[in-house]
This record gives sequence, structure tokens and C-alpha cells, in this order.
Amino acid sequence: MPRLTIPHIDIGDLHLSESELTLQQRLFNAIRDKITHGLWPLAGKLPSTRKLSDELKLSRNTVTAAYEQLVYEGYIESRKGSGFYVSIELPEHYLPDMRCHSKEINHAEQEDINRSFAPGVPDLAQFPLKKWQRYLQIHASRPSILGNGDVQGTLELRSVLVNYLASSRSVVCNTHRVIITSGAQQALTIATMAILNNNETLLLEYPGYTQMDKVTNLLNINKVHIDVEPLKGLNLEQLEKTQAKAIYVTPSNQYPMGTTINTEQRLRMINWASKNKSWIIEDDYDSEFQFAHRPYTSMQGLAGQLGLDQNIIYIGSFSKVMFNGLRMGYMVVPESLVERCNTIKDALSGDSPSHVQHALADFITGGELLRHIRKMRRLYKAKHQAMVDAIEQHFSQQVEVISQPGGLHVTLRWDDGIDEETLRQRAQQQDLIVRSLAYYQPDGRKTRVWNGLVLGFGNTPLSAINTNIMTLAQCFNQEQ
Amino acid sequence: MPRLTIPHIDIGDLHLSESELTLQQRLFNAIRDKITHGLWPLAGKLPSTRKLSDELKLSRNTVTAAYEQLVYEGYIESRKGSGFYVSIELPEHYLPDMRCHSKEINHAEQEDINRSFAPGVPDLAQFPLKKWQRYLQIHASRPSILGNGDVQGTLELRSVLVNYLASSRSVVCNTHRVIITSGAQQALTIATMAILNNNETLLLEYPGYTQMDKVTNLLNINKVHIDVEPLKGLNLEQLEKTQAKAIYVTPSNQYPMGTTINTEQRLRMINWASKNKSWIIEDDYDSEFQFAHRPYTSMQGLAGQLGLDQNIIYIGSFSKVMFNGLRMGYMVVPESLVERCNTIKDALSGDSPSHVQHALADFITGGELLRHIRKMRRLYKAKHQAMVDAIEQHFSQQVEVISQPGGLHVTLRWDDGIDEETLRQRAQQQDLIVRSLAYYQPDGRKTRVWNGLVLGFGNTPLSAINTNIMTLAQCFNQEQ
Repeated sequence: MPRLTIPHIDIGDLHLSESELTLQQRLFNAIRDKITHGLWPLAGKLPSTRKLSDELKLSRNTVTAAYEQLVYEGYIESRKGSGFYVSIELPEHYLPDMRCHSKEINHAEQEDINRSFAPGVPDLAQFPLKKWQRYLQIHASRPSILGNGDVQGTLELRSVLVNYLASSRSVVCNTHRVIITSGAQQALTIATMAILNNNETLLLEYPGYTQMDKVTNLLNINKVHIDVEPLKGLNLEQLEKTQAKAIYVTPSNQYPMGTTINTEQRLRMINWASKNKSWIIEDDYDSEFQFAHRPYTSMQGLAGQLGLDQNIIYIGSFSKVMFNGLRMGYMVVPESLVERCNTIKDALSGDSPSHVQHALADFITGGELLRHIRKMRRLYKAKHQAMVDAIEQHFSQQVEVISQPGGLHVTLRWDDGIDEETLRQRAQQQDLIVRSLAYYQPDGRKTRVWNGLVLGFGNTPLSAINTNIMTLAQCFNQEQ
Repeated sequence: MPRLTIPHIDIGDLHLSESELTLQQRLFNAIRDKITHGLWPLAGKLPSTRKLSDELKLSRNTVTAAYEQLVYEGYIESRKGSGFYVSIELPEHYLPDMRCHSKEINHAEQEDINRSFAPGVPDLAQFPLKKWQRYLQIHASRPSILGNGDVQGTLELRSVLVNYLASSRSVVCNTHRVIITSGAQQALTIATMAILNNNETLLLEYPGYTQMDKVTNLLNINKVHIDVEPLKGLNLEQLEKTQAKAIYVTPSNQYPMGTTINTEQRLRMINWASKNKSWIIEDDYDSEFQFAHRPYTSMQGLAGQLGLDQNIIYIGSFSKVMFNGLRMGYMVVPESLVERCNTIKDALSGDSPSHVQHALADFITGGELLRHIRKMRRLYKAKHQAMVDAIEQHFSQQVEVISQPGGLHVTLRWDDGIDEETLRQRAQQQDLIVRSLAYYQPDGRKTRVWNGLVLGFGNTPLSAINTNIMTLAQCFNQEQ
């Protein structure tokens, strides 16, 4: 929470207008205008007479006299030994223009987005903040890294990522092919801009990741949907009948359907792309968390083994393995695309925050990231099991879990009973944030007869899962 | 500098292929492949046998036997009491695929971009890092702000900015109209995307800010140049004969020509925009540093007083008043544009880093920012004077300073003598980074017969200015 502090007023652009009035009168007018226009805040502390006379090159007497006149007329008040403040008891006709007052946003609403079953949020309470702070602290005291940095990201972080991605995801690359981005979101935008022109076609999973849909809308990309079927995953037959410039996929844990593409299917998709000279944008957002089997090798890595990785862009994020507010992501692109992507990033936002990049590189090199991931893999596995158990217990087979044991969410499906949107609203009244599956079908195409719900369990405490699922089941079965 | 640390290898996607071989042999093959493909780094530490047997659900004996075989064949080595490491003496034919090795970037080159006369860099050594760290520390320990945040920026920071911009720049707004961005660069992109379509026309100052030119190139915006004349500034007659959807201007301190637009000229531009229903993008990047007069009221503030601010976007940055590596900027937009800009930001990069925003809000509320600005205004004023004095002393009237006393750079002009590009190259050989004026004329239009050079003095120590200018003068007068 911001502390209650008296705002100190900067002299800013205060200046005396040209006129025949005395300097004192012109100073009085200038300050009075600042106050009546609401530019100097109520209760704000004015500059001292000494400072103001220095800055405006006026005599101290002139300033003191103008201040006294302002006090006399009720615009400012003098507090003994402390200085001058904008009066908080301005007569009504002096009150600042109301345009300066804020339409304040409901704070409670904002906090909601990370609570209960909100998808895509990791367990924030578990993150080793003290350790992270220590790494941040080391680099926050280095004046040498305060300046402009490499647009592509620091060499240190890119180098550490090359090793991390090779050992954990078999991604084949070098530092020159890694680009640090402002969250995976910026990587999605850069990838799309780099390979697709206006009105060219991108294939999207359906249902799919809404934040990718927003990118295609912004850039006027023509999109065609490939169905993701419950428990089966991306419809490859449908894909193989389609031609397009590129496809966006979440192969390790399809978002939101929670299906995975195995090695054989990955190879089919790589072959399709190779045959059609299409690009693959591989979003590997939470592949670190697989509970039932070892994760499959990334499509980038697989394609690399076959020498077919010239048309694959691999995208990852630290939002799930660390925390969302870090806003750090990365992309691995083929050599041919490096320059184009750097040019785009330079225009979009320039370089990335330096201290965070340096701290992150050390955090990974020091083994902290892997330690945290291992710990969280165990915890999320337990949470996932608790979700499945609670659903079995409280829903007595009214709903089916259709997502694989992996990632940070569980996807439910049911045919008869309450409508998904009604359930979402009822849950919200009980303080449970859930997403109906329709959220991931932004065009509202009506091909689905069943209902679906996405429940994130990342940031729900293990101990709260059973109660929350019970509440959700009560909403489900509540009489109209 | 990154410390020399042994990379710990994550098990990652390691898995045993289906085959008729024994488990031990399949594990041996899987690890050998990781090493020969260069996915597990030389000298990297392997997971312990206990951990690997847990994760892969193999017996400890199987893992130990596979490790022993790997040691025997020279892929890994055992260090007593410490564990197993990828061997650094692999036979040549086992060496990792060279694609994994980095095309390393010259580090010295990277550091250069903030040195000597590099423009746009503030005095990094003067920034109160200890204080900043303290604010950062307070918020870096709050798990509650680790999640997803408001795309527009935290309410706390926006609220503090409303007051800061009102008192220092007479900007009229409320929190709902402020958007926090990833540096001013992202604000430029969002502004351009929000108001201009493909092939619509944006007027740019010429010479002008190269980073804005990159935005127009990326977005295929049609650009028309309005000349900025030495000592006079933007050619308003030329502007008034032109129609366009928008104009981008740096009215307080034109970059790079260092001219300023006075209140009368600002009003003319506001009237032109109002008459033509054109947008003004006002980039107020270093208005805090004016040494000869009080800064003029921002165009946004002036237009607001006349009720004509519906078509003005005000953009600012913390790169100059704090440091570049912070990557924080902001924009103030009319009510009508808020939703559109938030939608664009959401697609481009999502929300902004939370800790930094909270720390920044407190840093400003606590008065630290204004204190730092006041201190730096005095220092930059002294540096500017030292620049002018040294130029007079060493160039004996061969060059003219054409920029106003303000900001962080000095712009030189000369008619006869060395070509600006030759001078830039010679200076670089002497370790002086300067920019020739041609850098700011990316289309290379050949209307200028004189030579120009831009010298940033922000990050040059006061004590080094005279020597550096002397060196530059020697380059200037050096025989071919």
C-alpha cells in the first residue's frame, strides 16, 4: 500500500507571464493559476521561498510577499517551522477542475485475477523471494549496467538459456538465436510480425490461447482454426488438409484442453510444415510440469535432429516457473530470422530491463531455478491429485476431467446439467474465479454441444482444494 | 560478471526409447545421446543416481550401472564424493554439434553504447542506487504482487504520475488516462498503432528521432518530413501547408537539433491540429532539464487549458531522469483512446513488471525523484557550460553550437572542413562515441550542405569534458 505522504511540489514549468504587473503580482498569479487548475495538489508542500527565489531568479522578498498574499487570500497556508502548503479548505469556486480527479478502479477486482481457480498463475507463496531478492540486489548496485543494453537481451542470460533449454527441452540453438522478451506475450507478437504479413493465414488451435487471438486481431492476420478434440488433441487429419503460412501450437500441454502431442504426432506436424513450407510457432509455456510421464522432446529439438528446424520458432516464459509479475519471456528463432526479430523488438520496446536479466541469469546458473522447478513439480503433482480426488468425491461422476496430469490447470467436461457460463457466474459469487471454455473460443463458433470449465490450481493452496471443489459442486447442483 | 559456476543438469525430457534393449542400455543410450548432441554441457553435473532413479522410476542399481558404463566409455567422469560430470575430454568424434556453440558478441562493443559522448544516456554514476534498492527491496518481498497485474499499469504508479505530471508539466489528466509502458519506445508504438492505419500519413521532424522512424517502418506508416531548421526549430509554415493524420514532435528540446518551441508556436501547432483534426504525439523526453529558462508548459497542458486536448498523446520516460535500463515509460491519452491503447498493450506485451512499478511509485511519492532531478539539473547545467567553454577553447570558432542550453546533448554545426562521418570515425578510433547528424536522417535526403554532430554529455564526467573535446578538436583538425 502506498504510504500517506505529503506530496512535495516541484516548481516544474511555473513561470511569470509577460505583463506590466509587478513581479510579486505575476508570481502570485502564476501560483494561484497552478492551484485553481488543480495542477498543484491540495495539501501539497510548496517550494521554500529560498528555493523558489533561486530558481526563478527573483528576490527573496518578492517571493515572501507573494506567498503572504496567497496565504491572506486562502490559497495556501503557513505551518510554523514547516513551510507553506496548498490550503485544503479552498472556497468552492477555487476548487480544482474535476477532470484531475481519478475514476478509481476497484482494487478488490484487480486482486481477484490471481485468486482461487484463476488459470495460468503459479503458487506465488512458494517462490523463494528471499533468494531472488539477493540476486536482484547484487545487480541492482551495479551502475555499469544502468545504461542502454543489447536489444536482444544480455549475453549472460541468453547464454544461460541456451544451456537450460538444451538440457531440459533438447532445444538446439546458440546465444545468437535467443531473444529475451517482455513476457512470452511479446515473443508471440514478434514471431507473428516476423513471419506473417497482413491477411496471410495463421492456424490456431481451437479452443485456444486467447492472448494469441488478441495478437492476430491487432495485426489483422487471417486466422483459421484447427479443432482440438477432448482427450485426443489437435486434429492432425484436419491440419494435413490445410495450407497456411504458419501454425501456432501448445504441444506439451494444449491450452486450455490439456492434451499433449506425442513424438509421432509431433513428427507428423513437422513433416506437414516442411512439405508446405509453413512455420511452426511452438509455445512451450508449462512443459516443466508433467506428472505422469517424462515430457516429450520439444518440437524444435525434434525438428533440429532431423535438420528441419529452419521454420520453427520456440517460445517460453518465466511466468509459470517463477512468477507472472516478472514479465520475462524468450524466443529461439532460426538464424535467418534473428535480424528481423531484433529489428521488430527494437521498434516495439527497445531493450529489456537490465537488472532483472542479470539477476535471472545468476538465479539459473546458481541452480535456484531448477531447485524451485523440482520442488514445484512435486507440489503441483500433489495439487493435481487433490483436484482429481475432490472432483471425484464431490461431483459423483457428473463431470469428467479431460486434461492430462500436467501443467497448472484441470479441464472439466459435462454434457447434461448447468450451462458453463451460469456455473462461472455462480462460482464468482462464491469468490471462486473459474473460466468457462467459451472464453477460449472468442469467435463464439457454436460447434460444441457439451460444457467445459477450466480450473487453475497453481495458486490455490493444497489445503483449500477440497473445500473449493465442494463449493463449485454446490454451485453446479444448486436449484435455479 | 557471471561467476564461474558448474551447470547443474536437469533431467528435463530425458526418457528411454521403446526397444528390446535392457533398461540399463536404454538409459545409457539416452544419456549418451544428450551428451553427443551437446544438450548436456561439458563439465555439467549429472543428477545423482538417487534422483535419477526416482524421476525415471528405475532401480538405483540400473542407474548406477548405466553411469559406470558411461564413465568407462569416457562420456562422463566420477569425482569422489562429489558426483558425476560430463567429461571435458570427450574424444573428438564425440564432440557436440557445433551449432550449439555461440557466435559470441564482442562485449567491449556493447559497453561502448553508453560511453563518452553517446547521446541519450544520463549520468549513471550519480543515480542514488542505494535508495532505489531500498524501495525495490520493500516490494520485492511482497508475494501478493507476484501475479498478473493490470495491463494499464498499477493504480499506485498511475496515480503518482498524475500528480507529478500536473505539477511539473501542467499535464491535465486522471489515472484512467495514464498507461505505463515498456520504455517510451512502447508508448511510441502504441500511440502510432492506436491512431494510424497502414498507409496513413504521420509527419516527422527532420532530422528527427531515429527510434520513431523505426516504428513507422515496422508499421508501414506513410511518413512526411517537416524540416527542423538550425536555431529556429520546426518549420511551422511548412507544417501549416500540410495535412496529415498525425504529427510526432519533441517540442521541449527537439531531438537532435536542440531547438525549443515557445508557447506561441505551441499554440499555432495546436490550432493546426484542431483545424485539420490531426493528432499530436508529444514526446517530452527530457523537459526536466532546461538551464536557461523555465520549461514551457507541455502542449498537452496548453491544449487542455483551451479544451483542445482530445487529440493529444503525451509521452514521457524515466530513462533520462533515472536510468535507461529501468525500461519504464508512460503515455497520457484522451479518454476516447484509453480502451484502444490498453487492447494494443495487452496484445503487444501484457502488463508491466510489478515490483518496479510499485518501487517507482514510492520513489516518487517519497520525493526522491524530484530530489534527484534537482541535483542533476545543477550538474547537467555545469556540464553543458563546460561543453560550451571547451568547444570555444579548442575549436577556435570552427564550429557553432546550435542547440539550446537544455537536455543532455549539444549539437554542433560547421560548414567548411572535415566531413561529419569522417569525424565520427576518427573520434571512434580515439574511443569517443559521437553521432553524425546523418544518423537522424535515415532516408539520406541530401538537402543539407553543412555538417553536424551530436554530443551527449549526460554520462561524461564533468572532469573529462575538456580533454574529450580537445581530442575531438584534434580529430577535426587532423591532416588526412
